[in-house]
Amino acid sequence: MLADNIHIVLVNPSHPGNIGAAARAMKTMGLNKMVLVAPRDFPSESAAARSAGAEDILDNAQVYETLETAIASFHWIVGASARSRRISWPVMGPRSFAEKVSEQSELGPIGLLFGRERSGLSNEELDLCHAMVAIPSSQGYASLNLAAAVQVLAYEIFRQSGAISNVAKVPSKDLLADRPANQKEMSDFYCHLETVLEEIEFLDADNPRKLMRRLHRLFNRAKPELREYNILRGILTAVQEKFKRH
Amino acid sequence: MLADNIHIVLVNPSHPGNIGAAARAMKTMGLNKMVLVAPRDFPSESAAARSAGAEDILDNAQVYETLETAIASFHWIVGASARSRRISWPVMGPRSFAEKVSEQSELGPIGLLFGRERSGLSNEELDLCHAMVAIPSSQGYASLNLAAAVQVLAYEIFRQSGAISNVAKVPSKDLLADRPANQKEMSDFYCHLETVLEEIEFLDADNPRKLMRRLHRLFNRAKPELREYNILRGILTAVQEKFKRH
Repeated sequence: MLADNIHIVLVNPSHPGNIGAAARAMKTMGLNKMVLVAPRDFPSESAAARSAGAEDILDNAQVYETLETAIASFHWIVGASARSRRISWPVMGPRSFAEKVSEQSELGPIGLLFGRERSGLSNEELDLCHAMVAIPSSQGYASLNLAAAVQVLAYEIFRQSGAISNVAKVPSKDLLADRPANQKEMSDFYCHLETVLEEIEFLDADNPRKLMRRLHRLFNRAKPELREYNILRGILTAVQEKFKRH
Repeated sequence: MLADNIHIVLVNPSHPGNIGAAARAMKTMGLNKMVLVAPRDFPSESAAARSAGAEDILDNAQVYETLETAIASFHWIVGASARSRRISWPVMGPRSFAEKVSEQSELGPIGLLFGRERSGLSNEELDLCHAMVAIPSSQGYASLNLAAAVQVLAYEIFRQSGAISNVAKVPSKDLLADRPANQKEMSDFYCHLETVLEEIEFLDADNPRKLMRRLHRLFNRAKPELREYNILRGILTAVQEKFKRH
């Protein structure tokens, strides 16, 4: 478990108090990397007040205008969601999530995305994720406060880190042989793929965006390593060059 | 697990916002019995605002002047604490706590005590408890917000109650809507893929079998569903037909 690789990403938070409370929740559980995407009001006095001693996390928070730039260097991205979605994503509970965080944070920077207070994450934002995590909650009233959701998941991560530090866990050589493709690379791949699909006239007439979403989901599940990513890009380029020669 | 027997007791809370946030945290986890001991400011508008839809819990909260009267009818009382104490109490972690809550709530009303924001529970108040529960937290910064602590423990109680089986354990209908591609189909896909790679002259000169092995590994990790399998086969066919038309 490398805490420095674990980024808590708040997408478009409305209330600065929630940003401060999230920072406090992070710090109690040994996390320190906060990323803010287009916060409505930050820096802010009420964020500092609610952080209650976790101002260092606010001071070091990275602020971005868009989600894509914020997560460009991450190789594994998970969206926190209370909702069930039309297209099925792999949804983890908090404990299997924490186990995965433990593994993936050893390999490089990862991101845990929290959506807007009212509307959560959009489908487009979820397309950037490899998986989703849902906190079990009452069917009648599932609306956890933003910082409360951060607290629960950070707590599970912290628990897991204590649980595994006792067990000598040797990462397999195979896992370390190659780093995973990061978000920027995968984004380039999806653009390239979409271009080629247009060139070969492979389109879902009914709903072209749905096709790309399905392919996102498929390849995000596979989580290509850099070498595999290069093969995939190579195949796409070979298709394009074959046409040029014709 | 009898949720109606589980009382969340806030001892002498200073900030009404915390009372509201605690009510919200309770409600997300199916708890509804709030008890307030000598709150500094209650009822209050800021409690209602922060409760965000859990006003029913605030409306039904029982308010007492002293802790002893508040917990008079409870048969099992646990104090939440971040601190280690001079006198050693039996301290549980959140999970064994949740198991105990499950057992004890079947027998009659029980209380979970949360202390003041700054100073927690006094030794005299702890004398009234049967046990303590401590949320594991960072050694350098253990100060969970009051409502955040309620959230974490209520979450563990909710998990224990078994209501969680609705979230992570049972796959959504959508997940079940599609079966995974079977071995025969995947084998057909790899043959098709290899044929197309030859046609577009994408070959690993050094070791062509190694390339296919890598692609096997990548797509086996993704474990395509039938619909995704059909998309992949469709893309390969579209590449081939594009060449024919040229």
